[in-house]
Amino acid sequence: MAPMPSSGSPAPGLAAHYRAYLACLNDRVWSDLALHVDEDVIYNGDHVGLTGYREMLQRDVREVPDLQFKPGLLIVQTPFVAARLDFDCRPRGRFLGLEVNGRRIAFSENVFYEFAGPQIIEVWSVIDKAAVENQLPR
Amino acid sequence: MAPMPSSGSPAPGLAAHYRAYLACLNDRVWSDLALHVDEDVIYNGDHVGLTGYREMLQRDVREVPDLQFKPGLLIVQTPFVAARLDFDCRPRGRFLGLEVNGRRIAFSENVFYEFAGPQIIEVWSVIDKAAVENQLPR
Repeated sequence: MAPMPSSGSPAPGLAAHYRAYLACLNDRVWSDLALHVDEDVIYNGDHVGLTGYREMLQRDVREVPDLQFKPGLLIVQTPFVAARLDFDCRPRGRFLGLEVNGRRIAFSENVFYEFAGPQIIEVWSVIDKAAVENQLPR
Repeated sequence: MAPMPSSGSPAPGLAAHYRAYLACLNDRVWSDLALHVDEDVIYNGDHVGLTGYREMLQRDVREVPDLQFKPGLLIVQTPFVAARLDFDCRPRGRFLGLEVNGRRIAFSENVFYEFAGPQIIEVWSVIDKAAVENQLPR
């Protein structure tokens, strides 16, 4: 394995780690999630751990079976990755507390990750709920 | 002026440009906004231009007089900057379509910028509206 670049330098390795994580989610290979996510991962300030993180993702894809994670923007500065994920999907029922009920909606998530080696140790995510609201009938 | 670093390299210059932009907002020096924002700036897919962008910021600080822009996370990969801005403020009335009415609220914005030289040419922003909702009475 190539040495990790020093802080602040470009990190094609980190982008590759991140894309492998997204592929794991898109293929629903939950058994591989531990390769990409640390046992003690923190999500939006909560110490959810790997188990809680996996449960959150599994709930997401149960509510949104056609969910695919695609980075529209990907910005890397070791040890951080920032991504704008563009979603285009049909949540089955309630989603983000809104009655989506199978409608096709498009929205983005702007999300930051801190890595330790190939693993995500902390996530700061914001989902564009206002964009979803604007696509529902008043 | 130092030469701009090549694509993908660390860019302390770009972080400095970004911090100067935030200082301009925090000090409400609207006459300097053109130093930091391009005439044809695009905001969340809309070609708002410098005038529309300035009007949006001026409306924000009218609605939230104590608004201060502070980056909790700052990730730079030329020509992009990604920031998590942490707000702690008292919107006066309605804010993000919610009846905040002077309550003190804390929330974040995850935002990406593309720069051309020292100027912002495109912005992709998501504000954590759900976090604000969770701080209001049901």
